[in-house]
Amino acid sequence: MNYQFSNRISKIKVNPLRANARKNMEHPDVISFAYGFPPEAAFPSHKLAEISQKLYDLDNHETFLQYGPSEGHPEFLSVLGQRLSAVVNAYDSEADELMVVSGSTQGMDLTIKAFCNEGDVVICESQTFSGAVNSIRAYGAEPLAIPMKGESIDLDLVEAALVADVEKKIKLIYLIPTFQNPLGTSMPLEDRKRVYELAKAYGVMIFEDDPYGDLLYVGEHIPKIKSFDKAGIVIYSGSFSKILAPSSRVGFLVIPKGAYEMILLGKQTSDSHTNQYWQLVAAKFMIDYDFEAHIDGLRELYKEKYLLMMDELDKISPDLMTYIKPAGGYFLCGKLSSTVDIAKFYDYLIEHQVAIIPGNVMSVAQEGFDNYFRLNFTKPTLDEIRKGINIINEALQSANLSTSVKALEKEVM
Amino acid sequence: MNYQFSNRISKIKVNPLRANARKNMEHPDVISFAYGFPPEAAFPSHKLAEISQKLYDLDNHETFLQYGPSEGHPEFLSVLGQRLSAVVNAYDSEADELMVVSGSTQGMDLTIKAFCNEGDVVICESQTFSGAVNSIRAYGAEPLAIPMKGESIDLDLVEAALVADVEKKIKLIYLIPTFQNPLGTSMPLEDRKRVYELAKAYGVMIFEDDPYGDLLYVGEHIPKIKSFDKAGIVIYSGSFSKILAPSSRVGFLVIPKGAYEMILLGKQTSDSHTNQYWQLVAAKFMIDYDFEAHIDGLRELYKEKYLLMMDELDKISPDLMTYIKPAGGYFLCGKLSSTVDIAKFYDYLIEHQVAIIPGNVMSVAQEGFDNYFRLNFTKPTLDEIRKGINIINEALQSANLSTSVKALEKEVM
Repeated sequence: MNYQFSNRISKIKVNPLRANARKNMEHPDVISFAYGFPPEAAFPSHKLAEISQKLYDLDNHETFLQYGPSEGHPEFLSVLGQRLSAVVNAYDSEADELMVVSGSTQGMDLTIKAFCNEGDVVICESQTFSGAVNSIRAYGAEPLAIPMKGESIDLDLVEAALVADVEKKIKLIYLIPTFQNPLGTSMPLEDRKRVYELAKAYGVMIFEDDPYGDLLYVGEHIPKIKSFDKAGIVIYSGSFSKILAPSSRVGFLVIPKGAYEMILLGKQTSDSHTNQYWQLVAAKFMIDYDFEAHIDGLRELYKEKYLLMMDELDKISPDLMTYIKPAGGYFLCGKLSSTVDIAKFYDYLIEHQVAIIPGNVMSVAQEGFDNYFRLNFTKPTLDEIRKGINIINEALQSANLSTSVKALEKEVM
Repeated sequence: MNYQFSNRISKIKVNPLRANARKNMEHPDVISFAYGFPPEAAFPSHKLAEISQKLYDLDNHETFLQYGPSEGHPEFLSVLGQRLSAVVNAYDSEADELMVVSGSTQGMDLTIKAFCNEGDVVICESQTFSGAVNSIRAYGAEPLAIPMKGESIDLDLVEAALVADVEKKIKLIYLIPTFQNPLGTSMPLEDRKRVYELAKAYGVMIFEDDPYGDLLYVGEHIPKIKSFDKAGIVIYSGSFSKILAPSSRVGFLVIPKGAYEMILLGKQTSDSHTNQYWQLVAAKFMIDYDFEAHIDGLRELYKEKYLLMMDELDKISPDLMTYIKPAGGYFLCGKLSSTVDIAKFYDYLIEHQVAIIPGNVMSVAQEGFDNYFRLNFTKPTLDEIRKGINIINEALQSANLSTSVKALEKEVM
């Protein structure tokens, strides 16, 4: 059979790392800063086991074994809505509807499905989550990569793109405003307000992707873009992957009422509904236990790793590498100085079994960002952070073109 | 905000019944033959609770709480592959790859995503699963409804459509060959062979949707179309919704090797991966318990209801209603005689609180099949079957135009 695939699926850029990802990570000799995984210690396994047992002890198993509503289990929607209103300030029950999705990847997928025709355009940060970019391409829409300026997407360029879009092809602005992936940056409040006003003025939706939002380690929470959405143009996306368990595949969208029905239709045709077991486990966790204390525990767990990573990275000469300090989340991005031989740097890391994500992989164009590399600090142990960042420092020195050849040879020995 | 939705999402036909579905079903006074749900008794809850407890007792919770591979958990893929080879004869590890999907709705969604451009065509049985039809429309492709002839899609018409398709727009033939939804029909072996040869000759893929295949009550299993797929043109779709628990959202595709990578790319951009908890629960169920005995138990449970429904339906005069006896599955379809006033029939059922699915809902065009209605026999109790079919008989008699007005009035009283 000579398979004829759709044009849109052919546009998806394959992540060359994916195939070997888990193999590498599971190799005991590799120190991995590569993937955005929580560590085993982050799972509240004992509490989950208790909740699970209680679910099976119920008289009526239809609550979590039977088919369920496409929009999500009512008990979960209720408690989640309360938290999103009271704690996160990203849900207004008068103006918005809440929908459970099978992980935030599906949230993005359904949004593109509902809003973008083939050839439509989605504005993205030039370095961003590759899964979201592929969701855009999978519907035949085009990501428009706009460079960063400080900790925000360059808003002058966003405005210029909107002005130039006479055919109204731009349907959506995709942003990770808080603890950005891969950069770790957080958009300041005034920029959030400006991008919101721009979107409103040009009749474009904003997709605020916020999987890490709860994981603040220093400073204060910056209000969500969704918090000032009076016009009904912001879809807010959250997830339980980073605050409960990734394999729950439980995410959610806060959707302006006027856009809800069409996204729900897409959900029905995509996978009918999200598994109810994990919706109910999450609901009971939020009702029967102190969920905010759980989040605080995760923040403590990660903050220790985060602070150690900053300490270790600050031992590296800024002549070799710089980075923007994140205020929370999972990642930061190193930027190599122009004196560093990029190929040599990566070769050294491979040889010394330190795994990172090269910047090109986390960029829309999949090129032009070879001088960036993403580091995750939640999954590695404290010891791995110490050893791994030390090896990165060695790699930078060995790849430093401004060092004399003799010194280089000595370091490599 | 004046929301501009995509053309494709606007093409999805909303199922008018969906909104009230659960409300109706949960009403204690309603006898429902409407939805394709298993009864509470079908859930092996005690065994599931044991397996679940063991998973949480593991030292390494990463096996089911962490991110997992897009194609599925290796332990589940392995035991599932063995069963599909040895019991179902729908998987050849030399020629096919196995992929876990989030329910069979997603399997169809991913297949359309990979194979169909906007404007492409998918051949369907004229009465079929509305979820699949909406998956086709959600990618801007068009379902081509072909009428049934006996228990098969009319193969002369399929051939004529393929011959006429000079632009090669037809990419796929979507079929539910076994215990069809909604008709309950099963395609005879010779017709399965013929549709396979037609697809091969015209370079078109077949999607063999088989969520009910294990649930045979009388006669012998008919070989799957996939079982004679030497050309790599059949994608076989199965599900644990009907044989374990619908809310597991665990389905699977058997995909010819050459088509696998593109469908996997689509899976990655749709929802990354399916929840691992249910993959592992299903795997342990198949390994630690006698899965075939469990299936036999379901067959016994449903066969009793199935036989009773046939008995009760056979009390109805064939002048009022006929139906094709299924050999297994979840459904059958009543066909009203032309002497029955359709509107009166449905009104009577509503008034007497018996829920069925009108034929139009389960048809591609959503019109022209008002004289059919689908009955599910797995969810109602034996008592509900007795009472409900009796009410349907009354409804038919009261709506019978050939009965004198006087007799009609007497019956309605």
